[in-house]
Amino acid sequence: MRAVDLIRKKRDAGELTREEIEFLVAGATNGTIPDYQLAAWLMAVVWRGMTRPELAALTEAMLYSGKVLDFTDLPAPKGAPLDAIPGFVDKHSTGGVGDKTSLIIAPVVAAGGLVVPMISGRGLGHTGGTLDKLESIPGFNVNLSLEDFRRVLATCGCALIGQTPEIAPADKKLYALRDVTATVESPYLICASIMSKKLAEGIDSLVLDVKTGHGAFMKKEKDAVYLAELMVETGKRMGKKMVALITDMEQPLGRKIGNALEVEECIEVLAGSGPADLRELSIELAAWMFQLGGRVKTVAEGRELASDLIANGQAKEKFREIIGLQGGDSSVVDDPNRLAHARHSANVTTPRAGFVAEILSEHVGTAGMLLGGGREKKEDTIDPAVGIVLHKKVGEAVAAGEALCTVYYNTENRVEEVWELIEESFRIGPKAPAAAPLVRRIIGALNS
Amino acid sequence: MRAVDLIRKKRDAGELTREEIEFLVAGATNGTIPDYQLAAWLMAVVWRGMTRPELAALTEAMLYSGKVLDFTDLPAPKGAPLDAIPGFVDKHSTGGVGDKTSLIIAPVVAAGGLVVPMISGRGLGHTGGTLDKLESIPGFNVNLSLEDFRRVLATCGCALIGQTPEIAPADKKLYALRDVTATVESPYLICASIMSKKLAEGIDSLVLDVKTGHGAFMKKEKDAVYLAELMVETGKRMGKKMVALITDMEQPLGRKIGNALEVEECIEVLAGSGPADLRELSIELAAWMFQLGGRVKTVAEGRELASDLIANGQAKEKFREIIGLQGGDSSVVDDPNRLAHARHSANVTTPRAGFVAEILSEHVGTAGMLLGGGREKKEDTIDPAVGIVLHKKVGEAVAAGEALCTVYYNTENRVEEVWELIEESFRIGPKAPAAAPLVRRIIGALNS
Repeated sequence: MRAVDLIRKKRDAGELTREEIEFLVAGATNGTIPDYQLAAWLMAVVWRGMTRPELAALTEAMLYSGKVLDFTDLPAPKGAPLDAIPGFVDKHSTGGVGDKTSLIIAPVVAAGGLVVPMISGRGLGHTGGTLDKLESIPGFNVNLSLEDFRRVLATCGCALIGQTPEIAPADKKLYALRDVTATVESPYLICASIMSKKLAEGIDSLVLDVKTGHGAFMKKEKDAVYLAELMVETGKRMGKKMVALITDMEQPLGRKIGNALEVEECIEVLAGSGPADLRELSIELAAWMFQLGGRVKTVAEGRELASDLIANGQAKEKFREIIGLQGGDSSVVDDPNRLAHARHSANVTTPRAGFVAEILSEHVGTAGMLLGGGREKKEDTIDPAVGIVLHKKVGEAVAAGEALCTVYYNTENRVEEVWELIEESFRIGPKAPAAAPLVRRIIGALNS
Repeated sequence: MRAVDLIRKKRDAGELTREEIEFLVAGATNGTIPDYQLAAWLMAVVWRGMTRPELAALTEAMLYSGKVLDFTDLPAPKGAPLDAIPGFVDKHSTGGVGDKTSLIIAPVVAAGGLVVPMISGRGLGHTGGTLDKLESIPGFNVNLSLEDFRRVLATCGCALIGQTPEIAPADKKLYALRDVTATVESPYLICASIMSKKLAEGIDSLVLDVKTGHGAFMKKEKDAVYLAELMVETGKRMGKKMVALITDMEQPLGRKIGNALEVEECIEVLAGSGPADLRELSIELAAWMFQLGGRVKTVAEGRELASDLIANGQAKEKFREIIGLQGGDSSVVDDPNRLAHARHSANVTTPRAGFVAEILSEHVGTAGMLLGGGREKKEDTIDPAVGIVLHKKVGEAVAAGEALCTVYYNTENRVEEVWELIEESFRIGPKAPAAAPLVRRIIGALNS
C-alpha cells in the first residue's frame, strides 16, 4: 500500500477502505508516512469529505492508536447507587466564550453517583479551555498520570485532566498538522478528533454540547447540526449512548470571561446563585448525563436531581474534594478571593440608552485573549487573573453612561485593541430583542 | 505573512496576490516553508484551481526562482539568415508513446537558421523522455554545463540538455513534492511547471505539442485544449510567441518504441524515409517554429522549408554535428547498427484476419517500460536496447497469423506481463476505421 495512491483516491472522491485508513493512521502515529503526504490527504478530506464507514474507521483507528482506558474494575465511589451502571459518562463542548460548564457539571454528576473521567483541552484563539481555567486554582494539577487519574476517580467519582501521551497519539499528531495546514475545518476530521479522545476515556455515555453562533466554531446552526449528527452516529456505531445539544453561543455564556473569573462564577453556581443561563445549561447537560448514565429515567428527573445536588451543597462539596485530590487549594470554594486578581480594572460604558441587542461573543473572546487570558499561538502563556465581567447581557436595559462591562487587566499592552473590540461587540437597540432559547435542538435523543 | 493563512485562503476559493504567491515560491525554493504546508497548498490548488493572474504570478515566480538564460549576445550561427530574429525557438510536448519528434525537429529547425536551446526531461511511467533517447547514442552527454550549452548553441544553433540545478529550482522542489502527494494533475500546476522551465531557456517563441488520447497524460481532448489554452495565454502574457497543436495520441507515434529504436527511426525520417505520421508531425511542428521564429511568413512555407532541409540532407548533417558536439558517436547517423541491440526478439501475431481498429498506446508504453526501456520509479535504470516495433498501425489490414509487432528484450523478467499488455492493446475489427487527423486543433495561432 502506498500513501500517494490513497491520497489520489480521496482526491478523486473515492472511498478509502478500513485497511487503507488504518494504514494512514498507523503511518501518522509511528512516523512512517511523511507529514507532507498526511497534509495532502487531510486537505483532500477537507475537499471531498468522508463516508460514514470511512469516518467510523478513522475514529476507531485514531482511538486505538493509543490506550483506551477501562475503569470498569474501579470500586464503586462512595454513595453510588446500585443502579448506576453503566455509569461512566462525560460531556464535551465544541467550545465557546465564557463556556465553563465542565467545572460545574463534573462535580454535580459525580455527586449524583456517576463516574466522570474527564479529559479536557486548552484554549486557543477566542475560546477558553477547561485546563487553563482549572490551573487558575492555586496548585491544581491537570497533568496527572493515568494511575493518579484512576486513583482520584476511585476516590471521588470524578477527575479532570489533560490529554496524556498515551491517549490517541494519532490525534495529537494529526491535530498539530491540521493546525498549520488549514485543515482543521472539516466536520469529519473534527468528529474523529473529538470522538477518538473522548471514547479513550472508557465512558459508556457522552453528552455533546455543540455550540453555534457568533462565538462558536460553527457559526451556522446547520453546520453545528451536521457535526452533531456525525458525532452522535459515530458514537452509537461504537456502542455508546449519545446525545447532542445544539446550544446558543450568540452571546457569551454567563457574565464572566477569563480563567480565575470563570472559576469564581462556577463556584457561584455551585453555591446556588450565579447567572441564570450558565446555571440552566449546566443543569440541562448534567440532566442528560444522568439520564444516559442510567441514574434517572427521564431528563426532567435529571434536572431535578442536578438542582437538588446544588441546593443541598453536595455538588459544591464534591468540587472541593476534587480540587483537594488534584493538589489544588480547595479553600477557594469558600473564598474565591484566593484566586488571582488583576491589578487594574476599567469600565466600558455606553453613550446611549436602550437595550442590549447583541454581544458579539467572538469579539469578547478575542479581547479576553488579547488581555493575556488566552493563547494566540500555542506557545503563549496564560495570565489567569485577567478578563471581562459583563454587567449587561442581551435584552437588558441600559441607561446612557452606564457600564456595560468591566475589564480586568495587568498590562497596558494591546489595551486599545481590546477596547475597540469590546466597544464594537455591544450593539444597543431601541427595544429588547426576543429572547433566544439556550438549547436550540437536541440530536440523537430517540433510540439513545 | 503566514503560509497557513495562504493555504486557508486558497482552500476557501480565494485568489492569492502576486506577493503571496511569491512568498510561497520563495519559501519552497529556500526551504523556509515546510513541505507539509506546501503539500496542503498544492492540494488546495488542485481543488480550487487558479485565476489567470495567480497562474501568471506562479509561473513567473517559479521562472525567476533560478537563472533565466539569455543567448541574445550569441554570434549568429553559421548560415542564419539576417531576418531570423527573434530566432530563439523551442517545442515542448506533453508526452506520449513513441513521441520522438524533438530529435528530428531540433536539427531541422537549427538547419533552417533558428536557434533551438532545448532543455528536456526524462521518461516516467508509460511515456518516454528525450534525454533517455539521446543517451542511447554512445557517448552522448545531456549533462552539459550552461557554459557548454552556450558553446554548442553558438557553434551549431542547437543543443539538447537536461534541466540543470540553476534552472527553475522552485519547480524541481514542487515537482518532487507533487509526485508523492497526488497533486500532479492540475492544469495550473502543470502549466506553471512546463512554462517556468521552458521560458528559462531564453526563447522568444514556443510551439506546444499537447497530446490527447489513450497514450497521453490528458486522455480527453477538452482537458488537453484547456491546458493548451492556459499555456498559450501564460506565454503570451510574458511576451512570447506561442502556439499549441492538439495532436493525436490514440496510437503510438511512428512504429518504434524504445530508446535506441526511436533514435533509429528519427534517423530514418532525417534521411527522408521513416513512418508517415512521425514525418508529418515533425514537419508540422518545425513549420510552426519557423513561422513563430520569423524564418518564414506562413506555416505552409515552413512545411516546405522543413521538407527541403530533410530532402537536401542538411537536417541530417545538423544532427550529426549536434551529436559530435555533445560527445556522442555521430557515425550512428549513417550506421544505426552502432546503437545498442537487444539479445532476443519475438513476434506478437494475431489469430484472426481483419483491420487494426485500435492500438491502446498506454498499454504499449507500459509494456516498453516493463521491458526495461522506461522507469516505473525515478530511481530505475534504463535499458536502451529494448522496445517494440509495430508492423501494423491503425487502419492496416492483417492476415490471420501475421505479426502485429516484434518485441525486443534482454531478460525474461516480466515478459508475460508485457505479452499480455501488448495482446490486449491491439483490437482487430472487420473493417478499417475512418482515418483520424494527427493534428486535431490549433490553439492560439491568431494574434500570435
